Amino acid sequence: MIFKQSWFGKRCGEEILFPATVPGNIQYDYSIYRGFGDLQYSDNHKKLIGFEDDHWEYVTELSYKKEADERVFFVSGGIDYKYDILINGKAVYSYEGMFKPCEIDITDELCGKDTLTVHIYPHPKRVGAPAYTRDEADESCKPPVCYGWDWNPRLLISGLWQEAYIETRDSFYIGSCEALPSLNDDMTEGKVSFSFECDKECTVTLYDRDGNIVCSGTQKEIIVASPKLWWCNGQGEPYLYRWEIRNEREVRTGRIGFRRVRFVRNVGEKGPSEFPKTRYTPAITIELNGRRIFAKGSNWVNPDIFWGRIDSARYDELLTLVRDCNMNILRLWGGASVCKDVFYDLCDRYGILVWQEFMLACNNYKGTPHYLSVLESEATYIIKNLRSHPCLAFWCGGNELFNSWSGMDDQSLPLRLLNKLCFEYDPTSPFIATSPLMGMAHGGYRFYEVKQGGEVFHQFQRSRNTAYTEFGVPGMSSLENLKKAIPEDELFPIEPTASWVAHHGFDAWGPHNWVCMDVLEMYFGKQSSLEEVVENSSWLQCEGYKAAFEEMRRQWPHCSMALNWCYNEPWITAANNSIVEYPARPKPAYEAVKAALRPTLFSARIAKFSWSEGETFEAELWLLNDKPERAYGKVKAVLQIGDRTLELLEWTAEADAGLNTQGPTVRLVLPHADTDRMTLILLAENGTESRYTLQYKPTSTPVNTVKILNM
Amino acid sequence: MIFKQSWFGKRCGEEILFPATVPGNIQYDYSIYRGFGDLQYSDNHKKLIGFEDDHWEYVTELSYKKEADERVFFVSGGIDYKYDILINGKAVYSYEGMFKPCEIDITDELCGKDTLTVHIYPHPKRVGAPAYTRDEADESCKPPVCYGWDWNPRLLISGLWQEAYIETRDSFYIGSCEALPSLNDDMTEGKVSFSFECDKECTVTLYDRDGNIVCSGTQKEIIVASPKLWWCNGQGEPYLYRWEIRNEREVRTGRIGFRRVRFVRNVGEKGPSEFPKTRYTPAITIELNGRRIFAKGSNWVNPDIFWGRIDSARYDELLTLVRDCNMNILRLWGGASVCKDVFYDLCDRYGILVWQEFMLACNNYKGTPHYLSVLESEATYIIKNLRSHPCLAFWCGGNELFNSWSGMDDQSLPLRLLNKLCFEYDPTSPFIATSPLMGMAHGGYRFYEVKQGGEVFHQFQRSRNTAYTEFGVPGMSSLENLKKAIPEDELFPIEPTASWVAHHGFDAWGPHNWVCMDVLEMYFGKQSSLEEVVENSSWLQCEGYKAAFEEMRRQWPHCSMALNWCYNEPWITAANNSIVEYPARPKPAYEAVKAALRPTLFSARIAKFSWSEGETFEAELWLLNDKPERAYGKVKAVLQIGDRTLELLEWTAEADAGLNTQGPTVRLVLPHADTDRMTLILLAENGTESRYTLQYKPTSTPVNTVKILNM
Repeated sequence: MIFKQSWFGKRCGEEILFPATVPGNIQYDYSIYRGFGDLQYSDNHKKLIGFEDDHWEYVTELSYKKEADERVFFVSGGIDYKYDILINGKAVYSYEGMFKPCEIDITDELCGKDTLTVHIYPHPKRVGAPAYTRDEADESCKPPVCYGWDWNPRLLISGLWQEAYIETRDSFYIGSCEALPSLNDDMTEGKVSFSFECDKECTVTLYDRDGNIVCSGTQKEIIVASPKLWWCNGQGEPYLYRWEIRNEREVRTGRIGFRRVRFVRNVGEKGPSEFPKTRYTPAITIELNGRRIFAKGSNWVNPDIFWGRIDSARYDELLTLVRDCNMNILRLWGGASVCKDVFYDLCDRYGILVWQEFMLACNNYKGTPHYLSVLESEATYIIKNLRSHPCLAFWCGGNELFNSWSGMDDQSLPLRLLNKLCFEYDPTSPFIATSPLMGMAHGGYRFYEVKQGGEVFHQFQRSRNTAYTEFGVPGMSSLENLKKAIPEDELFPIEPTASWVAHHGFDAWGPHNWVCMDVLEMYFGKQSSLEEVVENSSWLQCEGYKAAFEEMRRQWPHCSMALNWCYNEPWITAANNSIVEYPARPKPAYEAVKAALRPTLFSARIAKFSWSEGETFEAELWLLNDKPERAYGKVKAVLQIGDRTLELLEWTAEADAGLNTQGPTVRLVLPHADTDRMTLILLAENGTESRYTLQYKPTSTPVNTVKILNM
Repeated sequence: MIFKQSWFGKRCGEEILFPATVPGNIQYDYSIYRGFGDLQYSDNHKKLIGFEDDHWEYVTELSYKKEADERVFFVSGGIDYKYDILINGKAVYSYEGMFKPCEIDITDELCGKDTLTVHIYPHPKRVGAPAYTRDEADESCKPPVCYGWDWNPRLLISGLWQEAYIETRDSFYIGSCEALPSLNDDMTEGKVSFSFECDKECTVTLYDRDGNIVCSGTQKEIIVASPKLWWCNGQGEPYLYRWEIRNEREVRTGRIGFRRVRFVRNVGEKGPSEFPKTRYTPAITIELNGRRIFAKGSNWVNPDIFWGRIDSARYDELLTLVRDCNMNILRLWGGASVCKDVFYDLCDRYGILVWQEFMLACNNYKGTPHYLSVLESEATYIIKNLRSHPCLAFWCGGNELFNSWSGMDDQSLPLRLLNKLCFEYDPTSPFIATSPLMGMAHGGYRFYEVKQGGEVFHQFQRSRNTAYTEFGVPGMSSLENLKKAIPEDELFPIEPTASWVAHHGFDAWGPHNWVCMDVLEMYFGKQSSLEEVVENSSWLQCEGYKAAFEEMRRQWPHCSMALNWCYNEPWITAANNSIVEYPARPKPAYEAVKAALRPTLFSARIAKFSWSEGETFEAELWLLNDKPERAYGKVKAVLQIGDRTLELLEWTAEADAGLNTQGPTVRLVLPHADTDRMTLILLAENGTESRYTLQYKPTSTPVNTVKILNM
């Protein structure tokens, strides 16, 4: 029986107890108590910086009812990040690590009127690390994002971020349940291996998706002949079986799916043909149930600056949008790492593959003995907890660890340890040490940037990577969100004021990011209003993401992944690469990405964003198809420019299952029009369309003739 | 007390017992018994092919003396490859794997007149693998070289390849001894951790190199303040301490050294500077005791086709030559893998770093459950047995596994398992999955080859790899060896007869290799005698290896390794990339390599081998220095051509510790001379020289003027 408690918080050194919400974060509770106001507004959040090095406590007077034959447990799904549990002042448990739950039998400590205290230590900061940087996190297993990132404020949080309660248990209690599915080599037979702890005999039952019993009994293994396979979004049904372990009084339940995930070598990657020969690139094409698939999706970050306040409703909003966006994968980026369990249940259900990274990012985790022991404990729990989810596709050591700003290597002990643990506890799932590996790539992150070869259109058209697993095009937040975060007198003109900087509008990653006024002015000239900035920014973000995602799909099968940076954000940002703004509202670019990720679409490869009157406009037509069946149809290409709609060509296209087809190239000498933009529309016979709205610049000398030159 | 036994061999199905030598190989004993003659001669070795699928037995009537309080053990250092041990017909032990020793307490099986049989199963051959290929070895842990390689005949061997004997043990017996050294971070303190099994109390003692006691007592750990470090050949003394574990009656002893080996990232390898960014290449520069060193050496193969017949004298001959060759590293290539223990003792003593590969090579080891269990057992033993040797620098999963002819990947279960085991049992030693990794390179293997960009000179001058860990220039064996292997009537003209082919003169790796008559005729025209072939072949091998090794040293510090393929050979080859021919005789190229690997030398970068009268001959001078101290001196460059010695220039050079210096370029329009060769000599002030003998072709129009043009 579960008994929720009433919790209070305390800043050690202060006497006052303030109300605390569990699950939650104590810094949030403290900010309410201290009247710090809306922490999303301006740079209010900085009020919490002065409390970074404090100890905190949660306190509760225990309230529960216990039968004679029952034991009393304190249970918590996880406590952030290093803590002691005390009963009536006596320490009964200590741990470091926010992910491993704790379950403590406290029966013998209880006297009838008991106080339970959770003492939370200050956030880890490596001695000698530059202050207020993520380097401070490089000797601990605390996800480093809250140490400050280019879209997450410096805001160190801790606390009872998962459920915490008292539970009474008798001999019927069923603990440590796991239903671990496996498949034979040709996927004709599935097996579910059950494990659990219970003093009483229990029955295990497996139900199919419709609730029919597949098998039931007291054995610990169930064989499923010709199992229905679990598929990801766009490839088939994410078919789930339900399992139950039950006895007279207790029941546990969960869902599993049968699927096989492997990495296979990217098409075209054979290694050099001449001596001296190096190796071929690491395999990074996902083969799901024997079928090579294009992994299209995004990078997931913590949906809130206060992790404890993330609930299943928030996850569901965001993940429904992921599924509807035609995505089939999310990368759980190492800076934030692991989500609450319900996240994975939802991904199982929606058919979203999860690339699960451990809590390492952009640092050199040298691997002290203490660090390695905490990592081993946390990772062992994480792997065992998540490995039975069909969505859990593969493991990854951490983010950008083999790039110069991190400085780690294949020999780094934390990565060898993670490889070992994943091999021990989940040997059938792939493991990669980090992203990017050789052949994969991260970046760029701007619509236009010299260090990415110029414009985003060109950047990916000139690249030939096996996987693009981070790439971003920034866009402003909505006016509504901006007004919540930026004081009215700072809204416009946009300057790097305290509020704009705090919300990552400037100096987030170089001086211009993420408002990118330099890019906006380069294309559109001086901006005259906030509305104009938001509109132009959205325009670039939409067309930029379309150009990038569609180019990556065109490079299939050599290129096997496209995951943009990033999907969501943890608070209101002024501008960000995200396509969904805080808390769960799609930005205009969401629709652009959704369109670009349709299983089947007509696509145009266009060299650049900005065109002038008299230039020869070119667009190479493609039929993109990642469905496991043939695609075909007619498409009409037209150009809307000013008040004219120019018919360019018609194409009848066919594409094999899971493959693209390259088609004709449209050419047109751009006529004069009194407009600043033009839209190429690919009208499919079935009524769907692909639209590309590009900048148009008339010159002073009008060209009246419309010249259309097709390949 | 150890009791050697008299062994007999038996081919199952035949009744006769024939004499067997232990250590040895049963196929060798059988060939003696059957009068097959010298197996090195012609293609005699093929007489053994018909016995590949046989079962064999070793039989001995046990002879020993046992005291009342003693137990009786059968001990073997290793049995190749899958076997049962029977006492008086009763199976008492079974194992698969040739490296793990066996020690079986047979006391209770003995009746007084006992027969011990070792039953040996046929060589593993994967069902479905193409017959007589190394694919047959891809599901077993038998080193695949004897399945046939381009310098090892198809000759499957098995047997008691290590010592095997009866041993009586009482309570004073000391077993499972290990002295495991470690160093603290700044190498100011060493520690030796002792482990052993004994019923009696034992004393451990540590002696320095000169026999002085460092520490002695009954504790299991000895701390050494300011330990003398072990250095590899050319970098300092390979300083060894001696340890002893002793009690009243027994003593065990061994040697250890204190050193630290890490991989650090190669200079210049930072990763891309523009987005999209992939990772930097894996670190492959050896840092020994805090000092980056250039790893210069060779690939070691099995020194005999019958592994059992390799003794410490043979190892010592070969390893003395390695040390004298100025090498500091040997790669123990995966096709042959692990050597007998004395090999590593000698490498400890001579300062030769060992790159130890596991027994995987050029196959796709898919990792069946059975294979993985054998691999785990064998690798666990290998790692624990070798990890305390100072020479053991790093571990490697196997050979060329990430190239198209193997087809494995970072996800391959055998490699993940090996990474895990090395991390568990030897975490301070680096581990690489295979060679080559990205940035490293293997090949080419000919003096001239279109698929390597042409001539060996050019091939490496146009490459920029982080490590060249296999590259070869073939050379004929000596006349003496040829006459032992090739029948007189086949010696000349050289044709692809049965004997020449059997000894890898033709069709070993493509039609021309390794005699490479195509290359010889390209440079020298039709050959008129065997002596001429041997001489010209040696000329090319000498100059080719010099050009390659010196170019790789010139590319330091970006390039950190140069290991040629290969050092030695297991039997008489007609021609081979080896620089030492069977059994342990240096070929002329040995001296060339020795000169190229001197710690300090003047070196000439020359673009090609063959020059014509009237051409402008160029040579870029360098001072190469991998000593940990400054090098400097004067050098005089002269060209010997015909009867003239032309003085070209003098250079006073200086090089920092461990770094090279690029110097002036010699230029000279080649005059006429009645000769077919010319020699560039760099005469150092201290009397040493570097010599480069190149082909010279006079034209019909003599050029009498000598034009010298220097940079």
